[in-house]
Amino acid sequence: MSRGKVYLVGSGPGDPELLTVRARQLLAEADVILHDKLPGPDILDDIDPERREDVGTRGHGDRTPQSYVNERMVELARESKQVVRLKGGDPTVFGRGGEEAQHLADREIPFEFVPGVSSVLATGVTGIPLTHREHASSLTVVTGHEDPEKEESALDWAALADTVDAGGTLVVLMGVGRLPDYATALRERGVDPDTPAAMIQKATLGAEATVTATVASIVEAREEAGIEPPAITVIGDVVSVRGEVEAWLQRAEAEGAGFEPGVAPLAGLANGTDK
Amino acid sequence: MSRGKVYLVGSGPGDPELLTVRARQLLAEADVILHDKLPGPDILDDIDPERREDVGTRGHGDRTPQSYVNERMVELARESKQVVRLKGGDPTVFGRGGEEAQHLADREIPFEFVPGVSSVLATGVTGIPLTHREHASSLTVVTGHEDPEKEESALDWAALADTVDAGGTLVVLMGVGRLPDYATALRERGVDPDTPAAMIQKATLGAEATVTATVASIVEAREEAGIEPPAITVIGDVVSVRGEVEAWLQRAEAEGAGFEPGVAPLAGLANGTDK
Repeated sequence: MSRGKVYLVGSGPGDPELLTVRARQLLAEADVILHDKLPGPDILDDIDPERREDVGTRGHGDRTPQSYVNERMVELARESKQVVRLKGGDPTVFGRGGEEAQHLADREIPFEFVPGVSSVLATGVTGIPLTHREHASSLTVVTGHEDPEKEESALDWAALADTVDAGGTLVVLMGVGRLPDYATALRERGVDPDTPAAMIQKATLGAEATVTATVASIVEAREEAGIEPPAITVIGDVVSVRGEVEAWLQRAEAEGAGFEPGVAPLAGLANGTDK
Repeated sequence: MSRGKVYLVGSGPGDPELLTVRARQLLAEADVILHDKLPGPDILDDIDPERREDVGTRGHGDRTPQSYVNERMVELARESKQVVRLKGGDPTVFGRGGEEAQHLADREIPFEFVPGVSSVLATGVTGIPLTHREHASSLTVVTGHEDPEKEESALDWAALADTVDAGGTLVVLMGVGRLPDYATALRERGVDPDTPAAMIQKATLGAEATVTATVASIVEAREEAGIEPPAITVIGDVVSVRGEVEAWLQRAEAEGAGFEPGVAPLAGLANGTDK
């Protein structure tokens, strides 16, 4: 029987400081780390190049089929390797971790999930809490990047609109390209156009940027601010909290591992953009 | 001007290995750590007792008012202390992190959010992914423990039911006591009674237990399995993945910090309960 094992590990939103203690240990000790680009350069560049394999692209930049990743995990585990399959954010939130687990179980390969800080949660660093006793009693997360093989959207936009109208928070991951579509879908189903909305680019990486607007104005505001993928959209009253707290909010600087007292408010916030 | 600062830090689901690297560093270096019971004993017992203050209960076990916690943070920061306000899971998901940030900003106290692994995500360790390309395109999280001062539920159960029927995953945090109420609310609004459901007690701590059933049978199944608070309920087709993968799933043992190859499937899973 194989003594190899696969760890399905979440890398968090991109800041190496937001790796879990366990993820960092596994990255240091694994025989092979299979990854794509999503964990981000700050984390990937710290890994010994001889132990990592980019399974996100192959050859001329084509996307690697999921079947290749699945078979590579099995192959390495059968060679008794300790394998980390590293995923951006958390491995069970829009990360195909469930499918990879099923594949491993089918082939009788031992595996373990190691949860990570979902990229959804990185909104907190920009001053937007995901729930609030006064503002939001529910949090819904959807992907704007659905399986292209699906014939129609599996999302029930009417139900999502009702959730927003009941005061819930809606987060759309990976949806920059389809932002106009879903902003329209929500408005057509009755969402108040004045509902606050924010778009956050790479919340814990160096090139981070946040823009706040409303459901009616977010498409234009994103274009003006130049927000690029990957980005997260947050819709709901919680977005208004950012305006109240941003002057006293200090970002976790990617390089600032030190524990530095002092006041260093974010710069350039006057127009709601801190790119 | 004060040189103190408050870090609103998520401790993750309870396993010290699932602290972020940054959280662990802040816990080692902060002057004072304000906490309640939610981070769990494995994390709290590692903190120097002279630096930690339990603000979750006072005197005869009464719950501390939020206003006391708010004022204590401000008081310590004004004494130029580096303060960690430690919260279970992530500080912005049903953790009042947003309210505490607003209070600090009002008093001109610098602060920072340090995201954590939400207890929602700990379901992965039990073999239940939160989304799946075939099973779920959305994830909705609500709390079963609403602000008792609210006159009526702020949750739109009809919209939640529609989300489940569209194939979405619904997670209810802290809702053991009200499980019969919300199982009934969903069924009355048309959720298929055969929809898979699971209840997970303390997903990454020693006393963890998981039971799988359906929306129709989960109340009885919970009682039989003896699942106690705090626990998470997961409703949706993703629950079915657990049955396919559990034999090859290895848990992260709280004490097993080592990187141990080998096969050690979970015991006692035959009836869908691994308490």
